[in-house]
Amino acid sequence: MSAAGPDLVIRGGTIVTASDRFVADLAVTDGKITQIARRIEGGHEQIDATGLLVLPGGIDAHVHLAQEQGDGTVMADDFSSGTRSAIAGGNTVVMPFALQRRGQSLRQAVQDYHALAEGKCWSDVSFHMIITDPTPQVLGQELPALVREGYTSFKVFMTYDDMVLNDAELLEVFDASRREGALVMVHAEGHDAIKFMTRKLEERGQTAPYFHAEAHAQIAEREATHRAISHAQLVDVPIVIVHVSGREPMEQIQWARRRGLRVFAETCPQYIALTADDLKGLNMDFEGAKYVCSPPPRDSDSQAAIWQGLRDGTFDIFSSDHCPFYFQGEQGTGKDNARARTSFKWVPNGIPGVETRLPLLFSEGVSKGRISLERFVALTSTNPAKLYGLYPQKGALVIGADADITLWDPERTAPIMQESLHHGADYTPFEGRMITGWPVRTILAGRTVFQGGEIVEPEAKGRYLLRGKPLEVMPPI
Amino acid sequence: MSAAGPDLVIRGGTIVTASDRFVADLAVTDGKITQIARRIEGGHEQIDATGLLVLPGGIDAHVHLAQEQGDGTVMADDFSSGTRSAIAGGNTVVMPFALQRRGQSLRQAVQDYHALAEGKCWSDVSFHMIITDPTPQVLGQELPALVREGYTSFKVFMTYDDMVLNDAELLEVFDASRREGALVMVHAEGHDAIKFMTRKLEERGQTAPYFHAEAHAQIAEREATHRAISHAQLVDVPIVIVHVSGREPMEQIQWARRRGLRVFAETCPQYIALTADDLKGLNMDFEGAKYVCSPPPRDSDSQAAIWQGLRDGTFDIFSSDHCPFYFQGEQGTGKDNARARTSFKWVPNGIPGVETRLPLLFSEGVSKGRISLERFVALTSTNPAKLYGLYPQKGALVIGADADITLWDPERTAPIMQESLHHGADYTPFEGRMITGWPVRTILAGRTVFQGGEIVEPEAKGRYLLRGKPLEVMPPI
Amino acid sequence: MSAAGPDLVIRGGTIVTASDRFVADLAVTDGKITQIARRIEGGHEQIDATGLLVLPGGIDAHVHLAQEQGDGTVMADDFSSGTRSAIAGGNTVVMPFALQRRGQSLRQAVQDYHALAEGKCWSDVSFHMIITDPTPQVLGQELPALVREGYTSFKVFMTYDDMVLNDAELLEVFDASRREGALVMVHAEGHDAIKFMTRKLEERGQTAPYFHAEAHAQIAEREATHRAISHAQLVDVPIVIVHVSGREPMEQIQWARRRGLRVFAETCPQYIALTADDLKGLNMDFEGAKYVCSPPPRDSDSQAAIWQGLRDGTFDIFSSDHCPFYFQGEQGTGKDNARARTSFKWVPNGIPGVETRLPLLFSEGVSKGRISLERFVALTSTNPAKLYGLYPQKGALVIGADADITLWDPERTAPIMQESLHHGADYTPFEGRMITGWPVRTILAGRTVFQGGEIVEPEAKGRYLLRGKPLEVMPPI
Amino acid sequence: MSAAGPDLVIRGGTIVTASDRFVADLAVTDGKITQIARRIEGGHEQIDATGLLVLPGGIDAHVHLAQEQGDGTVMADDFSSGTRSAIAGGNTVVMPFALQRRGQSLRQAVQDYHALAEGKCWSDVSFHMIITDPTPQVLGQELPALVREGYTSFKVFMTYDDMVLNDAELLEVFDASRREGALVMVHAEGHDAIKFMTRKLEERGQTAPYFHAEAHAQIAEREATHRAISHAQLVDVPIVIVHVSGREPMEQIQWARRRGLRVFAETCPQYIALTADDLKGLNMDFEGAKYVCSPPPRDSDSQAAIWQGLRDGTFDIFSSDHCPFYFQGEQGTGKDNARARTSFKWVPNGIPGVETRLPLLFSEGVSKGRISLERFVALTSTNPAKLYGLYPQKGALVIGADADITLWDPERTAPIMQESLHHGADYTPFEGRMITGWPVRTILAGRTVFQGGEIVEPEAKGRYLLRGKPLEVMPPI
Repeated sequence: MSAAGPDLVIRGGTIVTASDRFVADLAVTDGKITQIARRIEGGHEQIDATGLLVLPGGIDAHVHLAQEQGDGTVMADDFSSGTRSAIAGGNTVVMPFALQRRGQSLRQAVQDYHALAEGKCWSDVSFHMIITDPTPQVLGQELPALVREGYTSFKVFMTYDDMVLNDAELLEVFDASRREGALVMVHAEGHDAIKFMTRKLEERGQTAPYFHAEAHAQIAEREATHRAISHAQLVDVPIVIVHVSGREPMEQIQWARRRGLRVFAETCPQYIALTADDLKGLNMDFEGAKYVCSPPPRDSDSQAAIWQGLRDGTFDIFSSDHCPFYFQGEQGTGKDNARARTSFKWVPNGIPGVETRLPLLFSEGVSKGRISLERFVALTSTNPAKLYGLYPQKGALVIGADADITLWDPERTAPIMQESLHHGADYTPFEGRMITGWPVRTILAGRTVFQGGEIVEPEAKGRYLLRGKPLEVMPPI
Repeated sequence: MSAAGPDLVIRGGTIVTASDRFVADLAVTDGKITQIARRIEGGHEQIDATGLLVLPGGIDAHVHLAQEQGDGTVMADDFSSGTRSAIAGGNTVVMPFALQRRGQSLRQAVQDYHALAEGKCWSDVSFHMIITDPTPQVLGQELPALVREGYTSFKVFMTYDDMVLNDAELLEVFDASRREGALVMVHAEGHDAIKFMTRKLEERGQTAPYFHAEAHAQIAEREATHRAISHAQLVDVPIVIVHVSGREPMEQIQWARRRGLRVFAETCPQYIALTADDLKGLNMDFEGAKYVCSPPPRDSDSQAAIWQGLRDGTFDIFSSDHCPFYFQGEQGTGKDNARARTSFKWVPNGIPGVETRLPLLFSEGVSKGRISLERFVALTSTNPAKLYGLYPQKGALVIGADADITLWDPERTAPIMQESLHHGADYTPFEGRMITGWPVRTILAGRTVFQGGEIVEPEAKGRYLLRGKPLEVMPPI
Repeated sequence: MSAAGPDLVIRGGTIVTASDRFVADLAVTDGKITQIARRIEGGHEQIDATGLLVLPGGIDAHVHLAQEQGDGTVMADDFSSGTRSAIAGGNTVVMPFALQRRGQSLRQAVQDYHALAEGKCWSDVSFHMIITDPTPQVLGQELPALVREGYTSFKVFMTYDDMVLNDAELLEVFDASRREGALVMVHAEGHDAIKFMTRKLEERGQTAPYFHAEAHAQIAEREATHRAISHAQLVDVPIVIVHVSGREPMEQIQWARRRGLRVFAETCPQYIALTADDLKGLNMDFEGAKYVCSPPPRDSDSQAAIWQGLRDGTFDIFSSDHCPFYFQGEQGTGKDNARARTSFKWVPNGIPGVETRLPLLFSEGVSKGRISLERFVALTSTNPAKLYGLYPQKGALVIGADADITLWDPERTAPIMQESLHHGADYTPFEGRMITGWPVRTILAGRTVFQGGEIVEPEAKGRYLLRGKPLEVMPPI
Repeated sequence: MSAAGPDLVIRGGTIVTASDRFVADLAVTDGKITQIARRIEGGHEQIDATGLLVLPGGIDAHVHLAQEQGDGTVMADDFSSGTRSAIAGGNTVVMPFALQRRGQSLRQAVQDYHALAEGKCWSDVSFHMIITDPTPQVLGQELPALVREGYTSFKVFMTYDDMVLNDAELLEVFDASRREGALVMVHAEGHDAIKFMTRKLEERGQTAPYFHAEAHAQIAEREATHRAISHAQLVDVPIVIVHVSGREPMEQIQWARRRGLRVFAETCPQYIALTADDLKGLNMDFEGAKYVCSPPPRDSDSQAAIWQGLRDGTFDIFSSDHCPFYFQGEQGTGKDNARARTSFKWVPNGIPGVETRLPLLFSEGVSKGRISLERFVALTSTNPAKLYGLYPQKGALVIGADADITLWDPERTAPIMQESLHHGADYTPFEGRMITGWPVRTILAGRTVFQGGEIVEPEAKGRYLLRGKPLEVMPPI
């Protein structure tokens, strides 16, 4: 702290952590939180946060940006628009993926994505790696080196033709993860089951976007969840089941936990705010494509189960799975392309959500009394930081942590509108939802980067975060 | 019935069915049961069954005979020795497998096995087909034709390099089964998990036969059971999970049933009479190879679970999974071959048991009060007949049924001894077990074929049984 | 068998047992089944049963007849009308209750009910005792003596002011049952919970008959079921949970069984054919009182659960819980009395059903493909006989058994109509239900007692049945 | 803060909350936490906490002090010795009970216990009320008034002759709790089951202290837990199941939670550090009486389950259930009295533990890696404060909270020894246990009250805490 006092003082807000809430002033110097007190004098910059919540900046641990698609479609967000959208949504860290193409080295994938991100990050950023080609070289040489450097989590897919790993490969990745102390995120849907269902549906002429939800049956997600858990149990390694959509995979996770297995779980906004009926569009028309993502939203029973899981600790983290596509992309780059019109199976899988994640959970969860404020903070910031090795630099309003802070107005009520969002996509699947509780200011390392609905930072100064070994840090539970 | 009265009258025994028991005389004419009454006069042949149980002949629905092995080992039983052993064990029907080799047509496989069986069957026989190459031709053309002809059940494997089907193939077989009204039996063990464990164990130098039990972990069986159930649920088709070994796969089956899924289940003598400790031999020596089968026997907790399942209806049928190998085969044909000495993974998987199945279940189950006599009959004869489409010709002591009858002395006590058995193998894994309750006479279509410890039929007169569609007949429950 | 042949021959019917079905002739002499054969000549009486099912006579193990009510209402059936109704419904045995009044000896209760039954039984009859006053004298002296004489089952109530036993008393009765080898039937509803709910509902003015279903909440039934199971587990004694109404108590029973506890279970027609909505009558009017029984019918989810339980063996027996009241009784003797109009809590609990039990289960179960014919026989005749010590004299079509036989026309379709029934009540809760499958002839000990819709026996010749110790006979599973 | 700076500065410790840990200085003024910062200058009193953990003072939410016994025995702690022991064990708040005697008014009970506590509290104190006589007057008049005044939690007993409530009474208390927004703690053991078991054991001459553990069977605890949950579900009110001892009641709680019921749960040191075998003493001698408490410790399987529940959130709070008796009391005042020697049923139920609660959980839990530091804080301080309405004044190291702070040396290793403890009892059931991690200084409202193994406060200055309505504050989950 300079003689002239702290760089920034935030006064009179209600500070909320994953376990506590209290009114206090908070001071920042050199980008770090240095003081929390009943009253702090001075401050080069001073913010009156009376009536606002002072939250640790949101950490969106599941975001797809600028991933190359093999089919002519393109992601609607590069690192610039994606991270701008993130900070406008109250986030200070996003965790996108560096996708290994088959035949490619992991190292090359990491370099490629660093190149894509370079100079374009408005929030802090840290990559998970997606492993699609787990050769002995990749698992035995590259992965240990990258883990040592701070790339400590990988994602694997149990579906998608170009990414799916078979059981032998999954076991090898799990085993490498155990050896290196890294953490594996699992997209758990049974590939062959989905393909089987897809063919059956197509044979019956059921090709509208809605049938994506039937092809990606909850049974297939449950089965893959059980399979991933069993492999992890055999190898004796913790895993994260990402984007859990409904009651059936949840039951598998709960069953595993009661047995003492270390299975972490994530869910997403689409599973509390959408149902499969949304994919029906208007009378089964192509509007439904706007809601196509995998796993798909389920039904109201699963929504209720997801809420119960958010409340009772079944879910450790709540991420967006932001995976943005244009609805009307130019020349076949969007969801509404010629091929997708012939069958749901060609509709790009994914929806935008990095900017609406926090408002949706706050409004539906905190404002409606389903979860506590503290649990909101845990799910959206503290737990992701702990789970993925960013803690205590991130995810906490404590002395010494990065001054990543979101000021939140719990009373502000306004609808989600595409025209107000900052993402690259040309629509939001949550259009018109009335939200009570919005971020009003996002502060990254002590600098206000978003305020009053606008990005106020003149240039992208987000940093890249290398991380510790997740399981040497601390689990969220 | 000729003017001279019935061909055979069995007098004074206690007739036992899957639900009832009562003392009566029973008459047979032209190989069929024609009369059951308080007192039947006459009879060309007359048997005094006072003090004996009169049971429907055992149906062993899971028997491997004369299957070609790709590795130099040979099965210790051809159709002659195998069916002789069966009738000596109180059985009148065995259901062996016609194994499709990859690249081979199903039709050819069926013809090959008929050729192997021709003239050698001392019991009645009916084949299940093993599908290892489910091409569109096989599933779309051959299978429907064979089902129409009376080959109405197939087995699929989720493990073994030369037989394993992947999930896409399993789904196609299940779908064909649904279309044709046939029934699929599933060997549920996760192939990749077993291979992973095998490699790990070998890397640690853990190559003794015992480690077969660790490689074939119960987790892998549970996972595959869940997977098979999920695929069947997706396709909406009944399946049979065969040779269930322990508590964990049982829990999956019970969970499925509580949801109303039609999942049938089989267990075997090795899961009530052996444990993994038997594979340790004497101080982890190669004697353990005598007990190597898949899934392997588990522990005493799983044994208790299996008994509970036999009692409460979790299990519909109790079969031997007779899969006989020589221990000391000549020139590498047995378990004790040079390669098997280098690693458990080369030990032929399987043990003999068609002759000891009924005595073991009777002695451990009925004599010790764990299951009722009626349940014994249901598990070993009536239910297999119903499940696989042999009922009411087989599996029941009712008017019009084939006169396949086993006379059983519930008091006879003697140990299992290799020297008394009729199978081809050079050992029994149950050597020395004291048994209370033995078959004393086996009657096939009214002819006594086994009596006084000897095969008394001069030649093999067993018939081949074509079958109805299982699900048009009746389920065991 | 006289020189002139059997007393009765039933020809050409399909004989059905709890495990088998087959076409055969059946002969009766001296009231016993003496012969079952492909063809039986002669017979003083001859019945052509071609196209009919030949079933063991129904055993209704849960019937209330002529029980004294303390409140001015009267049961609509005495032993005469009740047993006439029973045989008209295809039954040959009913098991009513001898109710001990508090302060009364068990012996006296038994004598009183024998006096009520004397000369009035058109079917065979055997009493369960209801224990309401389990004094040391009752449990230590009377009960052992009565068990020895053949009164081997008792019922206890966990609710009803004048019959409820507290936990200490339940434990003592269970302990006595264990000592004597008798069997306890438990009416499992939590008394205090029902009274609490009743008071709450009355305070809100919710007094229409429908609110009986809310007062008798499924939670209260589940809790009492868990409690009864726990007490039985502590004492180590088998019990029967009677008239299970829905999914929640079922889950407790299934959970107990998976642990190996010997908990038997019964359900009744009202739980497959009625729901709580029936108690609403027409716009919540008093018509709903016609459906008031305890536990009350639940919802469609519970109906589905009950069907699953009938199929999978959760339920061992299916009884009527016939407990008939007049709807319009004279001078306050029926459901529609002045006090009952003021609150559901005064509406007599119970509905008639002894005559419609078998048709309802056959039509909804067998005709609609939900359960097999064999399971129908098991649930309604064989299992009750086994469970309560009547087997093999009753419940089986085997040589030596009583010739209690029901001829059933599986194709006959007609509605249930009060005007066609033989019970004493002035309504049936199942009025107008279309039924496929009706009994057309009831034969008791070889004598036709019901035929063509009429009682054809000139006088009541039903016998009283003393019974063996249930657990020395054989359990249904 | 005076011009001269804060009253107290604690420097360089690791501050731990229920979700975070970080190194910082902490300042206290006027008994409140006023500042947390990287560096705080000044301070009238300054403490160097380098290498120590700075924890919110322990809150022991389940402590029995000075409760009158009806049988001649006396509690070994009055409010003075009990609260001295508490602060020596790192606690700053204890929550003892004000016990209503039957016939007594609640108001009188509260006054009586205030009189007992007056001037003797070395820690802060807040009462739960024990309701033994829930008359309409008590529930309708007294209880609402007391809740409004800040007595917002009550305990009820499902066992003990002099305290047991029947189900009707439980339902009324639950209903009153729902109306008033208070919280009910339930001692869940089935009274009649325990009495039944006790009588059986005594009849067999099994009267040694060990048989207390058999009389208080886990089945009886499970049953009562299910019953309490069912009543709470019926009434729609949250409850706390206190001192959960083993796997079976835990399963009931988990089952309730999965259904969304608000059931909170507590466990205690005896269930992680003792087993029923401890009650065997030396060869079943009377030494076992030292470990008699209710529910009793169970077995190693239940210990493992309890640990899993502490980790996964099944348990919200961890309390001592301190209930101290002398082993060798004078003239029959202790466990070893003449009557207790005749039967376990006369051995006073309870063991001391307020001083050893935190060290045992820290050493066995945190030091051995079973739970995180943050979870330790949540279970022992933050969650009890939230659950019982003390938060945020208590249970949190946040600005504005009471400066109740425990300095903890995580490395200090020493055994538990009776001679070092401050409680009134003449023994500890944990004698000789080696503990890693001890409190070294307890600070109450900014004043050091315990340090260096000694009480350093000259007089008892603990305050009485009135509380808010628990459910208007915030639940721990």
